[in-house]
Amino acid sequence: MSTAGKVIKCKAAVAWEPKKPISVVEIEVAPPKAHEVRIKLVATGICRTDDHVLTGEIKMNFPIILGHEGAGIVESVGESVTSFKPGDKVIPLCVPQCGKCSVCKTPEGNMCDKIDFFEPRGVMYDGTSRFTCKGKPVHNFVCTSTFSEYTVCHVDSVAKIDAAAPLEKVCLIGCGFSTGYGAAIKTAKVRPGSTCAVFGLGGVGLSVVIGCKSAGASKIIGIDINKDKFPAAQELGATECISPLDFKKPINEVVFDMTDGKGVDYSFEVIGHTDTLIAALASCNMNYGTSIIVGAPPSGTEITISPTLVFTGRTWKGCIFGSLKSKDDIPKLVSDFMAKKFCLDPLITHILPFDKINEGFELLRAGKSIRTVLLFGDEKHTRK
Amino acid sequence: MSTAGKVIKCKAAVAWEPKKPISVVEIEVAPPKAHEVRIKLVATGICRTDDHVLTGEIKMNFPIILGHEGAGIVESVGESVTSFKPGDKVIPLCVPQCGKCSVCKTPEGNMCDKIDFFEPRGVMYDGTSRFTCKGKPVHNFVCTSTFSEYTVCHVDSVAKIDAAAPLEKVCLIGCGFSTGYGAAIKTAKVRPGSTCAVFGLGGVGLSVVIGCKSAGASKIIGIDINKDKFPAAQELGATECISPLDFKKPINEVVFDMTDGKGVDYSFEVIGHTDTLIAALASCNMNYGTSIIVGAPPSGTEITISPTLVFTGRTWKGCIFGSLKSKDDIPKLVSDFMAKKFCLDPLITHILPFDKINEGFELLRAGKSIRTVLLFGDEKHTRK
Repeated sequence: MSTAGKVIKCKAAVAWEPKKPISVVEIEVAPPKAHEVRIKLVATGICRTDDHVLTGEIKMNFPIILGHEGAGIVESVGESVTSFKPGDKVIPLCVPQCGKCSVCKTPEGNMCDKIDFFEPRGVMYDGTSRFTCKGKPVHNFVCTSTFSEYTVCHVDSVAKIDAAAPLEKVCLIGCGFSTGYGAAIKTAKVRPGSTCAVFGLGGVGLSVVIGCKSAGASKIIGIDINKDKFPAAQELGATECISPLDFKKPINEVVFDMTDGKGVDYSFEVIGHTDTLIAALASCNMNYGTSIIVGAPPSGTEITISPTLVFTGRTWKGCIFGSLKSKDDIPKLVSDFMAKKFCLDPLITHILPFDKINEGFELLRAGKSIRTVLLFGDEKHTRK
Repeated sequence: MSTAGKVIKCKAAVAWEPKKPISVVEIEVAPPKAHEVRIKLVATGICRTDDHVLTGEIKMNFPIILGHEGAGIVESVGESVTSFKPGDKVIPLCVPQCGKCSVCKTPEGNMCDKIDFFEPRGVMYDGTSRFTCKGKPVHNFVCTSTFSEYTVCHVDSVAKIDAAAPLEKVCLIGCGFSTGYGAAIKTAKVRPGSTCAVFGLGGVGLSVVIGCKSAGASKIIGIDINKDKFPAAQELGATECISPLDFKKPINEVVFDMTDGKGVDYSFEVIGHTDTLIAALASCNMNYGTSIIVGAPPSGTEITISPTLVFTGRTWKGCIFGSLKSKDDIPKLVSDFMAKKFCLDPLITHILPFDKINEGFELLRAGKSIRTVLLFGDEKHTRK
């Protein structure tokens, strides 16, 4: 029996307030309004950004349903939706692409005006939420909220993908993989034969490694203080892995030593610490090197540098979501995955049922997982 | 009678020590050795970098013959020189292009290993100078030393230009013009229809304006606290000129107001002050804006910024000599000038005989000149 047009009761992980565990509870998901689609999630990754909201480092409105790295199937569509139909495989987009704002119209811009991150409202465009719990509204997260069996997204925040795509893998393309891979491929535009250094080998950092390798870099130096990350980095393309703890001299000088005194062509900071931001900048060639900031620095951080680090010709560049135009680029990345241009398996260290979401967060905080993918089981929700 | 192979006695402006006036004296210029050419200068601009050496802000070895923005004619060539012959019109290159080092071989690099700026020696490749004054060696400056009727340069530091070029104008292509124009055209790659802000409207800043205009920018905001610079900026392409002193709010907020809250696509800092470096960075669009550092910050300066200024997608990039590959690009710029693609006249506010060099520096320091061009007169030197 069709659920279209009806409220769906299902399970979701609600975060009631910062610094408290998430609880999996029954919620109600209203039908999609005009220009919205309701999606049945099949899988979702857990990303550090979700945890930053839980710890309070990133401020959002509570209660909230987090999760922004999911993949699912369209359950029903609202009025005036012509580009999606029930049954379509989709990835919700934490960075929307409305196609109409000045940023979307700029060739290089990707931070669509509709992004709900910097001054978050946590509601749909009409100012209301489609989620309620015991009758009370619950906020959504960056227009996606994938920690729920069902979610509702505006069409600006959904990309239709290959009908054959394995959702339990390509969900990573919704955030972590694309953020890292895009930083190498699209933000830095890594050239064949070039040298790269990647600071931080978590899920995003490893995706940078995949991007550098895919772009044909000849040397990819992986850098992390946790050596447990090295085997995966090497499997994915890192030619050398080093820990700053093994050296007395600053790590940027070590990188210079490893590149005949030239510095790398491209460095990537995927941690968000001021000291590694500066080290990454100083690790690339002083005249033609490019350093990409991928890791989000905590709000309010300040950084003190010598402008000479940039003046002599370096490029220092940040990126949101790997500079990808989400709606245009995500389906292409899924196609590239289907064409085996890259592999996602080494990034997925843990697969858990959705109910074990707090266990997934614990693995993340303990540095034991790269990505945990949570799977939603059909039998686990009830429909009204 | 040919002077080839002989020591030439001529006039040069020698700086004996920092913070003292330059004195025009008779010096001896030795013949060029292998891979060197001796050049009879016809004209030279006075650039602020020369003054920074005199004030001690930039450290060089004294005594020294400054000047690095000249144009002249090859008088004689040393052994093994095949690419130049007496009579060739040339521009000495303060940034060499040896073509052999790793930087020269990189598509985007231009800071050739032979550059004599960051750890200056002030001598030829063989460790000796071709200049002496009363028998004592005098250092050269960034391989050029154009404040002399004759100079000797390694072939790495000379570009042959169009035989019809007016040397008293194209001398500016040797430094100031190219540094600014290249920053717009080659470093930033300003797109047609884009918006630009230029902080600092001296000779280099005005050359940035010329570059932005030539690239088809639709809005060019000139910014300077000296409103005397505004007429030239407007003549060269600035669509609006503003002084920060006329506003209570930070100038970057004014720039946002002038661009419908978006910020400019490209900003250029052509002063070298930390506050304007940050203001220029903050003036460009937070997601796809590019800010170019053109002004050299004083040695030892530190700058404190929020990494968020870069993280959200901005590009912060420095450039030496407008990212130009000097030997390849200077002759092309001279050809573009001959084809009337841009005009240099508005940059040249004063023309003085070489003897009046100290007057030229005074005009510069008083903010009364954009560029002073010094002319060498044939009758004013003697040959041994």
